[in-house]
Amino acid sequence: MKLNIAVLPGDGIGPEVMNEALKVTQAICHKFGHQLKTKEGIVGACAIDKLSDPYPLQTHQLCLESDAVLFGALGHPKYDNNPNMKIRPEQGLLRMRKELGLYGNIRPVMSFPSLIQKSPLKAEIVEGVDFVFIRELTGGIYFGEPQGRSEDGNTAYDTCIYTRKEIERILHLAYKFAKQRRKKVTVVDKSNIIATSRLWRQIAKEIASQYPDVETDYLLVDNAAMQIIQRPKTFDVLVTENMFGDILTDESAVITGSLGLLPSACIGEHTSLFEPIHGSYPEGAGKNIANPLAMILSVALMFEYAFKLKEEGQLIRDAVNASLEANIVTEDICDGEKAYATTEVGEWIVYWIQKQQ
Amino acid sequence: MKLNIAVLPGDGIGPEVMNEALKVTQAICHKFGHQLKTKEGIVGACAIDKLSDPYPLQTHQLCLESDAVLFGALGHPKYDNNPNMKIRPEQGLLRMRKELGLYGNIRPVMSFPSLIQKSPLKAEIVEGVDFVFIRELTGGIYFGEPQGRSEDGNTAYDTCIYTRKEIERILHLAYKFAKQRRKKVTVVDKSNIIATSRLWRQIAKEIASQYPDVETDYLLVDNAAMQIIQRPKTFDVLVTENMFGDILTDESAVITGSLGLLPSACIGEHTSLFEPIHGSYPEGAGKNIANPLAMILSVALMFEYAFKLKEEGQLIRDAVNASLEANIVTEDICDGEKAYATTEVGEWIVYWIQKQQ
Ligand SMILES: CC(C)[C@H](C(=O)O)[C@@H](O)C(=O)O
Ligand SMILES: CC(C)[C@H](C(=O)O)[C@@H](O)C(=O)O
Repeated sequence: MKLNIAVLPGDGIGPEVMNEALKVTQAICHKFGHQLKTKEGIVGACAIDKLSDPYPLQTHQLCLESDAVLFGALGHPKYDNNPNMKIRPEQGLLRMRKELGLYGNIRPVMSFPSLIQKSPLKAEIVEGVDFVFIRELTGGIYFGEPQGRSEDGNTAYDTCIYTRKEIERILHLAYKFAKQRRKKVTVVDKSNIIATSRLWRQIAKEIASQYPDVETDYLLVDNAAMQIIQRPKTFDVLVTENMFGDILTDESAVITGSLGLLPSACIGEHTSLFEPIHGSYPEGAGKNIANPLAMILSVALMFEYAFKLKEEGQLIRDAVNASLEANIVTEDICDGEKAYATTEVGEWIVYWIQKQQ
Repeated sequence: MKLNIAVLPGDGIGPEVMNEALKVTQAICHKFGHQLKTKEGIVGACAIDKLSDPYPLQTHQLCLESDAVLFGALGHPKYDNNPNMKIRPEQGLLRMRKELGLYGNIRPVMSFPSLIQKSPLKAEIVEGVDFVFIRELTGGIYFGEPQGRSEDGNTAYDTCIYTRKEIERILHLAYKFAKQRRKKVTVVDKSNIIATSRLWRQIAKEIASQYPDVETDYLLVDNAAMQIIQRPKTFDVLVTENMFGDILTDESAVITGSLGLLPSACIGEHTSLFEPIHGSYPEGAGKNIANPLAMILSVALMFEYAFKLKEEGQLIRDAVNASLEANIVTEDICDGEKAYATTEVGEWIVYWIQKQQ
């Protein structure tokens, strides 16, 4: 198979984890006889620095022409804590999502046995957690107009807006995932208060009836924020709108103690994008200490979701598990023993892949 | 002192926990020589049943004429899961908040030593947690107009709106609390995305400079959802807007394992209201099993916040701690041993108060 991949390392530790992810991608392609073509683009703070644009046109073109996009992370402290700055790295992310039509953010949340002691939650609560959080990514209050200020600057307003088409699309995606898993969908909204959530709930009930083999639950967002901590094991697929998803996916990510290991996918109209859920961690940049596993697991998702190459994805996951078991890990998840460098972890995983039959 | 209190038991277990709370209020007034006047009003599902109005005018009048309102809980399953029903109990709550100008929801979150094993989090994470969450309660997307549907019903929209006055008022409240505590305020917003949050952040920076002895932190809401679980002990006062507060206060409530024990206060323009954070728990109603401690601790908050009677509040808290230590508790927090009835717990606490010197 020919794999045509756009590579956006981004800022901070992005380039370092991307390097290792690309080594793994190459090793897999070599092993399975795929033809790999990669092209690099800039996005985020580094793109503002070079072109005064966090998502330059040539990067967008590159993504459009790709079968899949690998993305590292974005953001730099010099652009933080200054909400009134006109150009910000996050705008690159938002425009990338909107212009590529990346409507569905998929985050598998799972606990890794060797990391359970890192969780703030009790072992018996997080052992065996395995759910997928699906967040709508191109609608809601993130993009609704009007957004702004009154003339005197003393009143601000945002608009949350959703159309039937947007809601149906993301719900179908959720049910598609559930059908291949434990057949349970939990729809999260605030339908007792806001109009967009009432439309979500109404449409969710319609769609649910089209998937009679899948069980559907409805949770109000405040209740969901509690249940995710109280009984994370009971969830299979959760689906919600953009802003609720922003909050709840991060909450979910932190419960298993595997924050540095969680990959994500953004399913789109024109292409799909794969990225670790962690940020650009600027303090760690350039030190060869960043954990590359979430980025490497994002490559596994890419093989599975973008190219339907399940075996390839599984081999990467097996390699990551092997590195965890062998304790070949970076300092963030290393317990007492020697911590390995970003490059060492990547190379060990490549070697492990190469030596499999 | 003359205490003129409106009593709104509400639905479900509301009346039962209110009964015990009133016994405690009477015992305290008797001990300290205060003159207590209570008047009862209806709100929620029971008010819809009787008057087709979840917040009838006579209840509103009653609240307006009171120095403080004690409120139980509201909601009944027959009104749930039907988002299109015209009259819903929650509307009573929203109207009560808006019409009484209850702009500031205050939720102390603390861990009780004897309940730590109930927490989904590890003991070392929750031991000693003691922060106050302050949620703006009468603005934002809960009340913003326009809210509704397009004519064809296939597009829904909500408006989030905040004025400088609303934001300043709640921030001053947060700093007032912080000054009497550990002098740390954490402002939670999503200023990298939405306009209302940018106004929040801007005003927060202005106000922060007026309280040089208080340290101010800023957290994005998704990050806050993580940090609350990872390092709850480090927070002192958190403050945020209505919808974020709805989600994060419930998340916070669940981490200490003390969900059934957490009281809250709503500070208002015309009066202030005190209620447990738990819901109406309809399945438990009429069985004399509901935990009255959160409602009783809400009475303690009432003495302190509404009447500035600190000693009275502290005595109630001591009584509740004594009941926990003596294991005179309802089934929800009873470990193995005999569970006591709602009325037994209330009466034990009254007796404990009476016998103090
Ligand atoms: C950086 C920010 C704009 C972004 C978001 O809010 O969507 C991030 O928090 C995320 O979840 O990917
Ligand atoms: C019942 C509901 C309207 C309410 C809210 O969303 O404010 C509740 O969740 C709360 O937090 O008091």
